[in-house]
Amino acid sequence: MADLVLTTFDWVPKPPRGYVRDLRVRWALEEAGLPYRVQSVPFRDRHPEHFAHQPFGQVPWLTDGDISIFESGAILLHLGERSSALMPADPRGRNRAKEWLFAALNSVEMASLPWSLFMFSGDTGDTPGWKRFDAFLKARLQHMEPVLAGGEWLAGPFSVADILMADVLRLVDRFDGLAEHPACRDYVARATARPCFAKAHADQMAHFAAGD
Amino acid sequence: MADLVLTTFDWVPKPPRGYVRDLRVRWALEEAGLPYRVQSVPFRDRHPEHFAHQPFGQVPWLTDGDISIFESGAILLHLGERSSALMPADPRGRNRAKEWLFAALNSVEMASLPWSLFMFSGDTGDTPGWKRFDAFLKARLQHMEPVLAGGEWLAGPFSVADILMADVLRLVDRFDGLAEHPACRDYVARATARPCFAKAHADQMAHFAAGD
Repeated sequence: MADLVLTTFDWVPKPPRGYVRDLRVRWALEEAGLPYRVQSVPFRDRHPEHFAHQPFGQVPWLTDGDISIFESGAILLHLGERSSALMPADPRGRNRAKEWLFAALNSVEMASLPWSLFMFSGDTGDTPGWKRFDAFLKARLQHMEPVLAGGEWLAGPFSVADILMADVLRLVDRFDGLAEHPACRDYVARATARPCFAKAHADQMAHFAAGD
Repeated sequence: MADLVLTTFDWVPKPPRGYVRDLRVRWALEEAGLPYRVQSVPFRDRHPEHFAHQPFGQVPWLTDGDISIFESGAILLHLGERSSALMPADPRGRNRAKEWLFAALNSVEMASLPWSLFMFSGDTGDTPGWKRFDAFLKARLQHMEPVLAGGEWLAGPFSVADILMADVLRLVDRFDGLAEHPACRDYVARATARPCFAKAHADQMAHFAAGD
């Protein structure tokens, strides 16, 4: 088996801890039971070598043998192709996992990330900008609500789509943005109750604490 | 060969014409030379049947035999797996096409979509909200600039990654947001000079004009 190496920062400030995107990859690797190592790059001083692996100077990236992959969505798709614990075997189930993987990133996180930037900054006063992005997220959650009320996981069995969707919604939940969407809230609770999430989360917290 | 059917709206207002996401799918299908049909669903009155195919009530979706796929990223990945005109054959090239496909959506469009919502609304005054999202997009473009200056296309040969990245940057260019990023601007010009883009664009414009 090829050697899997996950690269993340050596340290990050306290507020994003527990939400850095290497968590998505750790979680998937734990669910798949694939052995992996974690290595660090400096958060404060980003080298050309870092940009060669991740052109935006962010994390994570994963190396699998001589292949280096950036973007959490691309990494999870790659791991989904490697492990039946992360993607159903039948064509319809695989298609469903892939379309929901993209939907988590490009339909839901597309709305939740701007919303959370407003929340992080506390800039949620009575401005057209804030109201527009709050309405954008609420519209997406309103459509997710019947989907998540209708089944335990998005593609039948638990899959990479759930890792991404739950991680995206978890950041909304942090700011109590799911209060009016109980099926979304219950889904986050269900996903984060999985032992592999707990392990991934604890490992990320310990990793960044070691850099303090 | 399975019958490919692309579904889009029967009509949209004038401002988004030429930028509706079915264009990405039309463009890919033209590049691949795959035969397809286009069918319409009502823009004004969205039925439960529509939400069964596209849970957010948006377009496009594609049916390929008995598989129905939503999310432009998932559709382009599916077509990339079907056609060597859309994705390189070697593992490194395929990986590169896939990671850039996700980067177009989740790193660049994640910044450009909020930015363009501010531009569409004209709400670009001296507010913290606008300044934050303008800076967010500029940071992403700054990292794209050396990448796009360094090669004709993202994954070696032209691929689905270029269709998504060029379409994402094209909307920024519409609002003159690439003026300080000549390699990004030249890349958009290079991509949209392809005959298959011109055909896809003209077909979308004619489709929506027929609904007037």
